[in-house]
Amino acid sequence: MSVIQDNGLILIIYKDRKYLKRISAGQSFHGKGGALNYSDIIGKEYGIRLGEYDIYEPTIEDIIMYAFKRETQVVYPKDSFYIAFKINAKSGSRILEVGTGSGALAYVLAHTVGPQGKVVTFELEERHYKNARKNIEKYGEWDNVELHNEDVENYFDDGFDAAFIDVREPWTCLNKVRSLVKESASIGMIVPTANQISELLKALENGFGHVEVMEIMHRKYKTVAERVRPQDRMIAHTGYLVFARRLDTDAERTAQKA
Amino acid sequence: MSVIQDNGLILIIYKDRKYLKRISAGQSFHGKGGALNYSDIIGKEYGIRLGEYDIYEPTIEDIIMYAFKRETQVVYPKDSFYIAFKINAKSGSRILEVGTGSGALAYVLAHTVGPQGKVVTFELEERHYKNARKNIEKYGEWDNVELHNEDVENYFDDGFDAAFIDVREPWTCLNKVRSLVKESASIGMIVPTANQISELLKALENGFGHVEVMEIMHRKYKTVAERVRPQDRMIAHTGYLVFARRLDTDAERTAQKA
Amino acid sequence: MSVIQDNGLILIIYKDRKYLKRISAGQSFHGKGGALNYSDIIGKEYGIRLGEYDIYEPTIEDIIMYAFKRETQVVYPKDSFYIAFKINAKSGSRILEVGTGSGALAYVLAHTVGPQGKVVTFELEERHYKNARKNIEKYGEWDNVELHNEDVENYFDDGFDAAFIDVREPWTCLNKVRSLVKESASIGMIVPTANQISELLKALENGFGHVEVMEIMHRKYKTVAERVRPQDRMIAHTGYLVFARRLDTDAERTAQKA
Amino acid sequence: MSVIQDNGLILIIYKDRKYLKRISAGQSFHGKGGALNYSDIIGKEYGIRLGEYDIYEPTIEDIIMYAFKRETQVVYPKDSFYIAFKINAKSGSRILEVGTGSGALAYVLAHTVGPQGKVVTFELEERHYKNARKNIEKYGEWDNVELHNEDVENYFDDGFDAAFIDVREPWTCLNKVRSLVKESASIGMIVPTANQISELLKALENGFGHVEVMEIMHRKYKTVAERVRPQDRMIAHTGYLVFARRLDTDAERTAQKA
Repeated sequence: MSVIQDNGLILIIYKDRKYLKRISAGQSFHGKGGALNYSDIIGKEYGIRLGEYDIYEPTIEDIIMYAFKRETQVVYPKDSFYIAFKINAKSGSRILEVGTGSGALAYVLAHTVGPQGKVVTFELEERHYKNARKNIEKYGEWDNVELHNEDVENYFDDGFDAAFIDVREPWTCLNKVRSLVKESASIGMIVPTANQISELLKALENGFGHVEVMEIMHRKYKTVAERVRPQDRMIAHTGYLVFARRLDTDAERTAQKA
Repeated sequence: MSVIQDNGLILIIYKDRKYLKRISAGQSFHGKGGALNYSDIIGKEYGIRLGEYDIYEPTIEDIIMYAFKRETQVVYPKDSFYIAFKINAKSGSRILEVGTGSGALAYVLAHTVGPQGKVVTFELEERHYKNARKNIEKYGEWDNVELHNEDVENYFDDGFDAAFIDVREPWTCLNKVRSLVKESASIGMIVPTANQISELLKALENGFGHVEVMEIMHRKYKTVAERVRPQDRMIAHTGYLVFARRLDTDAERTAQKA
Repeated sequence: MSVIQDNGLILIIYKDRKYLKRISAGQSFHGKGGALNYSDIIGKEYGIRLGEYDIYEPTIEDIIMYAFKRETQVVYPKDSFYIAFKINAKSGSRILEVGTGSGALAYVLAHTVGPQGKVVTFELEERHYKNARKNIEKYGEWDNVELHNEDVENYFDDGFDAAFIDVREPWTCLNKVRSLVKESASIGMIVPTANQISELLKALENGFGHVEVMEIMHRKYKTVAERVRPQDRMIAHTGYLVFARRLDTDAERTAQKA
Repeated sequence: MSVIQDNGLILIIYKDRKYLKRISAGQSFHGKGGALNYSDIIGKEYGIRLGEYDIYEPTIEDIIMYAFKRETQVVYPKDSFYIAFKINAKSGSRILEVGTGSGALAYVLAHTVGPQGKVVTFELEERHYKNARKNIEKYGEWDNVELHNEDVENYFDDGFDAAFIDVREPWTCLNKVRSLVKESASIGMIVPTANQISELLKALENGFGHVEVMEIMHRKYKTVAERVRPQDRMIAHTGYLVFARRLDTDAERTAQKA
């Protein structure tokens, strides 16, 4: 049972519109479906229809899409949900991210690694760092995201289970990231252009294996039983996903240990 | 550091082929790249190239795709990775699944809910149930999946955080599932045909809200830097995903409590 | 050599915007790129840059997309270009169309059947019929489209090489259309919903063979050499295309002739 | 009425299999549906079910897909049908093609330009040229395709209405093609990789305008009324289509005429 609390978050759906709000007793929401007094809903369970409004408890996706303040192109759920498992993040993992952006992917990862895990994320741009930190502090469930407003090159605490890179020239930090993850770890990247795929593939030729490049297309349908059909328009492109695994040669390992 | 253990799992990649093996000292793998003596690799870290073979630690995806014994159409990673977050599964969640199949989705969910969470899954077909149980016992990391070879209709331990239904006629158990999840919970479903979408949409008209229908297309690219292009063929269809949330009316709640 | 004539058509491109105009000496076009005096371009060949405007001779696609007055959802070029050849329309063919709409498909077909061929098209709605007739009279190259504002059921001049049906319930006129086309002829249909596909498939069970159902997705790319990538958004759905061929049994033929 | 002739072509469909045959009285077809004596069908109209075989008159698509001998990757109907209209080929047009390949696109173009039009196509590779010539001689309807086994650079008969280039490095002949088409003409190209798109876009910066890049995806559905759904697999990629139009500056024209 999830009860709507004063100062809690609610997702309001009115027809096709969605609003994510933090509520306060005494205040109210005014939309096309009329006024919704927050005092009337505090103490009720989520998942309730009141007049023309449906009130739900926000999900991870709702928070990212409707609550996060975005100062950058976020990694969309269609991509981030896939990425999280593809790099093998799971309960208890310690994950490295380079390029925090608005914090959307870090937020997803934080929910799967849980309170026993950790997401360590780097953002050079101070403005983005501050925005991401605010997003994650406001909406995070556990204190398991460590944000750095510095260059990952200055970081040396290695042994990450997996990593993700979301910067314009991911090839510039590939080797650093490789040195921070465990042997065999998965490293994911996202790039918007095919030219960048080409650059990345060159950079991945040494020290990496099992390279994969892909794109995920997400097509939504209308929800009328008598007229099942896709929506008219869709997002055609967010980015290309690239995945690889850290791969060492025997010689390299021997050298390392010597 | 992840060291290859006797009796551990390895993913062998030779060119485009992948083999997932449980190794034993003294035994060996014979493929197109020659013999690989397991004794030679036990004690080394994963992520190593030996001759023409690359040896990695298997990921969740590798296990599902190359280790799981499949007696049913599995929910593919492109779908299951999305589903897990879309229904808001996270560290500590308690998730209901109806239609275990080969256990692929339960396995993904188990990795995100972690040792503090629980996946409770129902499969009517004894043969599938036994196969799924074996898959999950062999490859699961925590003891957090509870498999039932019985009808979910006979189960009454409610309060699940979310649910997923993967049976031929999901509308037949929708109301039961609804009664087992928390208010506001997300319920996901997968169906292969548009006719089933239509049936589901009718069934979702009462007691559910925020209905979404979608399909996810996953397009892989070749990995040659000088010739960036999609692969020639792709999987065109696995299933349509349907999501909805439990929605009550105020009257209903009052009646329930009375 | 194609010279711009007084009273001729021009396609003006200014950055990403396109304008299709019929020009008159003395008049001018006023856009964000400044004024374009038509008198300055009359007598020049098409395909010329003047200031910030590029002036081209309109193609079939340009006419449909930017000149045709649309009173209905048009069959888009991605679909109509495919349909024309798929139903085997070619120079000299006589093609039947039921559901003229705005005339876009008839216009495409007219260009491939040419002056020796004929497109005969039926539209029940007077307003659409008049609009389509105007579109085709204004922009057609040959007098090879015959428009009827009547029910195809009242038409008996059979022997068409192929047919296309674009009405809400194509199954209602399928048998009539079948009777008007030659043996073995291709019949195409377009429907927006999966429910209609299902209805059509049932109706095609008798008297038709080689049934195909498909959809065509058209994804545009940005045109920057250094940043090759798809555009952000695309049209996700126009309609499902259904094709079948008239198929008789031997018994049926004998009966017909008796 | 189309009657099956001795020495004519037939398309035989047996379940999901298609066979395109040239028939001779006295001979027969032996497939999984038993023997089909050609003498039994000569004189009947096409579009007939005989036992388990359906016999149709082959369409343009059938000829390309099942009759053409392929020595190269052909331009598939999903692309060629679009290309033909996109470059504005129509009844009576004179079209230039560089890179005949197996002749599939030339064959499509020939059917739309008709007996009053002309397709002039160049192929450097003698083996491909001979194969394409044979394909077109055997299956063409009119004598309107002119095949050259030589370099287009040696050709000077200009004034084409449109052109298409299908060679590995289309940028090498772009300017030659530009000189052979009319002002404002559409020029299409097909390339398999994103790297080639990038090269082409650079080459199109001078002398061309209205550049478009796109890909066409074609998704087939199963044809069972009760189970409407896409087929499991699809062709994910054939090539990227690039279109541009010849664009001159005023200065250039003046220079030309001087």
